[in-house]
Amino acid sequence: MTGKDQLTGERIVLAHGGGGELTRRLIQERFLPSLSNPLLEPLTDSAVLSVSGRIAFTTDAFVVQPLEFPGGDIGRLAVCGTVNDLAVAGAVPKALSLAIVIEEGLELALLDRVIRSIAATAAEAGVVIATGDTKVIERRGDNGLTITTAGVGEVRECARLGAARLEPGDAVIVTGPIAEHGLAIMSVREGLGFDTQLTSDVAPLAGLIDAMFNSGVDIKFLRDPTRGGVAGVLADLAENSRLTVEVAEESIPIAPVARHTAELLGLDPLTVANEGKVVAVVAGEDSGRLLHACRAHPLGRHAAVIGQVIRRDPPLVELITPAGGRRIIQRPYGEELPRIC
Amino acid sequence: MTGKDQLTGERIVLAHGGGGELTRRLIQERFLPSLSNPLLEPLTDSAVLSVSGRIAFTTDAFVVQPLEFPGGDIGRLAVCGTVNDLAVAGAVPKALSLAIVIEEGLELALLDRVIRSIAATAAEAGVVIATGDTKVIERRGDNGLTITTAGVGEVRECARLGAARLEPGDAVIVTGPIAEHGLAIMSVREGLGFDTQLTSDVAPLAGLIDAMFNSGVDIKFLRDPTRGGVAGVLADLAENSRLTVEVAEESIPIAPVARHTAELLGLDPLTVANEGKVVAVVAGEDSGRLLHACRAHPLGRHAAVIGQVIRRDPPLVELITPAGGRRIIQRPYGEELPRIC
Repeated sequence: MTGKDQLTGERIVLAHGGGGELTRRLIQERFLPSLSNPLLEPLTDSAVLSVSGRIAFTTDAFVVQPLEFPGGDIGRLAVCGTVNDLAVAGAVPKALSLAIVIEEGLELALLDRVIRSIAATAAEAGVVIATGDTKVIERRGDNGLTITTAGVGEVRECARLGAARLEPGDAVIVTGPIAEHGLAIMSVREGLGFDTQLTSDVAPLAGLIDAMFNSGVDIKFLRDPTRGGVAGVLADLAENSRLTVEVAEESIPIAPVARHTAELLGLDPLTVANEGKVVAVVAGEDSGRLLHACRAHPLGRHAAVIGQVIRRDPPLVELITPAGGRRIIQRPYGEELPRIC
Repeated sequence: MTGKDQLTGERIVLAHGGGGELTRRLIQERFLPSLSNPLLEPLTDSAVLSVSGRIAFTTDAFVVQPLEFPGGDIGRLAVCGTVNDLAVAGAVPKALSLAIVIEEGLELALLDRVIRSIAATAAEAGVVIATGDTKVIERRGDNGLTITTAGVGEVRECARLGAARLEPGDAVIVTGPIAEHGLAIMSVREGLGFDTQLTSDVAPLAGLIDAMFNSGVDIKFLRDPTRGGVAGVLADLAENSRLTVEVAEESIPIAPVARHTAELLGLDPLTVANEGKVVAVVAGEDSGRLLHACRAHPLGRHAAVIGQVIRRDPPLVELITPAGGRRIIQRPYGEELPRIC
């Protein structure tokens, strides 16, 4: 499929989005060989699936540039983003929708790679692409491609999640080193030379979160710290629980290369996007068991308790520095760097 | 909300998409007042809803230009497109997701109008916006806004739909005058002066299709003829049933202004997009009852039988002209006009 397309040359043209014969061939010849499954195959307007009880339903639009970056690409990101939003809702992800908006001129070989990446990541996450839509718009720049996924999953019977459940004494856990997705993207964009070791952490978290629930621990809160970073999640926690979250800076897992890159770019790693990490809250006495469960999973090997929930007014997020100083962590105002995810 | 925004001026800026404080305010102050409902309100990563049995799941991306057009706007279109895809799958639409990609520079007043239109159309269709995502990308042109919706609905127990159910003697029905959405958009773009009467037919079809099922008729096939038009749907029917569809040209409902506009633009109205029509197939003897049910609904007043299914090889779609001539209708190859929906 990556060879020269007899009909269209090697780039997307407007007619690929017209809903006619060329659209049909794009889907039949380029999308279905990788993505096909019994739900998608009828190619009707809706997929039909059997579910029971409560379902979780979510969506994310992905506009990341560049489309391919160290550690992933827009396709892997689009699958993981929605899978992870379902998983942190306590759901077992089942099916995704895939809406692709392509600018004319996009290389078909690049599109093929993205589609194969979507297929591989969906398989890794245990979901199927159940339904989709493709549009083509006029050329406006290079490599124009945005992907929106939505997803449905079955909510676990046992899941009772929400910031309202937080209590003083709870432990805040992060499942691994932070800031790697956002910094990997920015390093490529800024053309930094030392970025070879820095790759995005983009990964589907359904398996890790499954392991966390299987530990039997009563998990009170789960969130994947994407845009806005860990700081944004902690700010939400304080705001919605009316409790203070105290974080020990030296306990936050971060790779040296990420720390150096953040310093060079003038960024606080706590505010940088992750795409393969979870922030979890459990009762303090349960934190050991949850850490154990996380560390037994490949995506949670470096899980750590980074802070605790305490009662102190006003409710804030406070960072305790290694020297014993304190500073307040706020939700980032508005990240000026677009297209991180 | 439509007045001058104290903080940001009157246009979207990149930081509105950063996932920080400005994103929170955009959602809290501009989206929630119109869209809020018990599913959306927690603003967590996933909405949780209760369903039972089989669900339909679908998605559509909308890139229409201009964003506001006679008879509708991108918001109304985005709700209707997904609601209609669920309804033609035999499902009762329940909940939609809403992913918005905005170019910086978009007027907030325009965004407000689109959001209000989404809210009004969702109410009309009997669905809620359950979950959403917003991204902002750098400015590339004027009025850059794309919307992707996905939807879930509960499939009716009685629904057994599919082209494989077609038999010789079946009747093909269309629920009203064709080609109005695509022609309304193209008229605006081409700056045609006589287009004042021509408005898009964009409408949510869940109520009409509900009335069709309530008639008790065994409906064999339903499809909304969007991109590719009625011709595209009929071509799919012939291809998937291996039967011929014979269409009488003079029986196809079309408004005179639409016919004239199509002639002026050199388009076959059968290939032009509709956004508020259904193509249905029922046994010939059931067609009267289904027409009666359609015509009792405001969106089906001009429903008509346009053709019949016959056994003749090779399976084709044949148009019989008023003079008794015959021509073969093919799936359009690839519409060269992008951004129709």
